[in-house]
Amino acid sequence: MPISFSIHEGEKFTLVEFDLGGDPISPEELRGLEPPEVDARKGVVVSGRGPIWLFGALVHHYHYALWVATHDPRLGGGVVVATHTPTLTVGDVVPLED
Amino acid sequence: MPISFSIHEGEKFTLVEFDLGGDPISPEELRGLEPPEVDARKGVVVSGRGPIWLFGALVHHYHYALWVATHDPRLGGGVVVATHTPTLTVGDVVPLED
Repeated sequence: MPISFSIHEGEKFTLVEFDLGGDPISPEELRGLEPPEVDARKGVVVSGRGPIWLFGALVHHYHYALWVATHDPRLGGGVVVATHTPTLTVGDVVPLED
Repeated sequence: MPISFSIHEGEKFTLVEFDLGGDPISPEELRGLEPPEVDARKGVVVSGRGPIWLFGALVHHYHYALWVATHDPRLGGGVVVATHTPTLTVGDVVPLED
């Protein structure tokens, strides 16, 4: 099964969730990755269960967004890892209840 | 203990290893992160045991390098997640024995 994505529009960010369908993913699947486009004026929170390199590829892909975070379920939010806005700093935790 | 970094220069890439010293890391520690500078004409492989958002921040930090990979010990190499060179594609696995 290919990677599927779902998006949820929040006021301040788009939550992009990927789903591997319980299957392992191989690195070459990154080549055909087509993550959903998002509104660059908002942030992006990337969420899902997958390998670090999948998150890495998605973080890089979304660097056109206002900011990018990865969801950390233990922290209950997205941790900002890249930002183009002075209102958020790398390391900020954005609650997923937007 | 703060995050420590060590670097190993390969012919084609710099291996950047972080070490949390067995301690948990909190997101706000990303703010003071000072990863070692690398030769932008080579790739970077980021390696270590840490949360996804730490890898995310480092992948973003090193986007000035020729390419960026994250080390996947199960695959025995770095998986390319971002590249500015036509000689490597996202999803390529670069063996760590350079």
